[in-house]
Amino acid sequence: MSQPSWSSLLRVPSGPVDLAAVDPRSTPGFKGKKADGEAALAEFEPAISDLQERLFAHGRSGGERRLLLVLQGMDTSGKGGTLRKAVGLMDPQGVAIRSFKAPTADERRRGFLWRIRQALPGPGSVGVFDRSHYEDVLAARVRKLVRPAVIETRYDAINDFERELTDAGCVVLKVMLHISADEQKARLAERLDNPAKYWKYNPGDIEDRKLWPDFQAAYEVALERCNTDAAPWFVVPADRKWYRNLAVTHLIVEHLEAMKLEWPPADFDIEAERARLEAS
Amino acid sequence: MSQPSWSSLLRVPSGPVDLAAVDPRSTPGFKGKKADGEAALAEFEPAISDLQERLFAHGRSGGERRLLLVLQGMDTSGKGGTLRKAVGLMDPQGVAIRSFKAPTADERRRGFLWRIRQALPGPGSVGVFDRSHYEDVLAARVRKLVRPAVIETRYDAINDFERELTDAGCVVLKVMLHISADEQKARLAERLDNPAKYWKYNPGDIEDRKLWPDFQAAYEVALERCNTDAAPWFVVPADRKWYRNLAVTHLIVEHLEAMKLEWPPADFDIEAERARLEAS
Repeated sequence: MSQPSWSSLLRVPSGPVDLAAVDPRSTPGFKGKKADGEAALAEFEPAISDLQERLFAHGRSGGERRLLLVLQGMDTSGKGGTLRKAVGLMDPQGVAIRSFKAPTADERRRGFLWRIRQALPGPGSVGVFDRSHYEDVLAARVRKLVRPAVIETRYDAINDFERELTDAGCVVLKVMLHISADEQKARLAERLDNPAKYWKYNPGDIEDRKLWPDFQAAYEVALERCNTDAAPWFVVPADRKWYRNLAVTHLIVEHLEAMKLEWPPADFDIEAERARLEAS
Repeated sequence: MSQPSWSSLLRVPSGPVDLAAVDPRSTPGFKGKKADGEAALAEFEPAISDLQERLFAHGRSGGERRLLLVLQGMDTSGKGGTLRKAVGLMDPQGVAIRSFKAPTADERRRGFLWRIRQALPGPGSVGVFDRSHYEDVLAARVRKLVRPAVIETRYDAINDFERELTDAGCVVLKVMLHISADEQKARLAERLDNPAKYWKYNPGDIEDRKLWPDFQAAYEVALERCNTDAAPWFVVPADRKWYRNLAVTHLIVEHLEAMKLEWPPADFDIEAERARLEAS
């Protein structure tokens, strides 16, 4: 019997989303413990390296395929760690990471997708968004940054935008890192206990904890309304960092594999070039 | 007796430069063989990770320091491999790689340093240039893309520019990957023998081999005239890939260490925050 793919295990089912039903400490698809998970991750390097180089070669040879990984999650959910440990397995030459903060006045004026379009990966690249256009239906909704009627229009706008991307050869892989409020508390406490982590601590994070249920609700709406066939959502239980890294890596690998990219053929006469090289 | 630093071993001495005097197969500073070199490289990860995170934290806390690694070398000298194996040891979040091709008409019109300035790393980041403004005194000189009098003005312009960068808190680490013409021939032959490498092969590379002595001479001029105290040049023997990766990593680490960056202090009341967190 073949293994179910991680993509099928972690994909958000269509219909209403209930995040409370997903245990953030669970490890779907993996029976081992931390050490096993870390060992499994390390073994991925050759495979991911090969797949990514095929994509890179494809881009260099005039192809249009590319991969956009959208990382979302509450503060401390581990977006940074995922960038280091999962995304970090890839060749940095072919990876473009973009981190989105609150939009500037100029960016707001141009429409919420403008800065997103500016940051899309080029052909053959893996683009990674640390936060994304989803903040415009998450933070914007919870903090009431725009009128509800405006938020309402954005879900469809996002679906149209993502459909346009996938039609143009860009695979869109959307991952929510799902942690528990207790785990967040523990991670914030670590930042207060370790002088090497003070810089990561922001007193505003505590006020945000009061908004936890509102954010979860906003995620549920976004995950339901933007869970399209063209660009489905995946939820990765993220209380265990090692599992989070392993799961995101599996998702990246499966999405790269599904592109079925071949090495570009030679666009020159191999024997003739061998002779020219020999004579040089 | 303390070890001489890799920076002092690999730094280009002031005065006229003779690249022929540097053996591309030599391994200055390292007595071991390939397996030892690869093991030594793997052991670096925690150190480089700590140093880079200090720089990143510094940037996030309002500091202005950053590091710019300029990688130059003939075709097949291993700039790509260095990005994967040495630069790839760092957290991709804090690294911005920029690859420079021949300038467009628009870029030429804006002056050769314009696009370089656009691509500089932000505070707390490590920027990496895969080729750089040096092509404007290397390829531009060898291929006679501009008048000799224009090339002449560029060395001083580069020195002024780099001095401006270092004055503004940007460490400029310039590395030439030095390979032999024979090694290049072997590497090009590999690209013709392996279908997974055809995409890397360009028939124009053979014509360029005829310009080898001219390029070496252009490098010698650039390495002499732009070998300033503010931004000195380093030559890394690069026929052995493992040594090249190890040497560049040592240079990065030494330059990060020299910044002597401390973790940013807390800008909040730690005890008060602990109490707020506990109550949240």
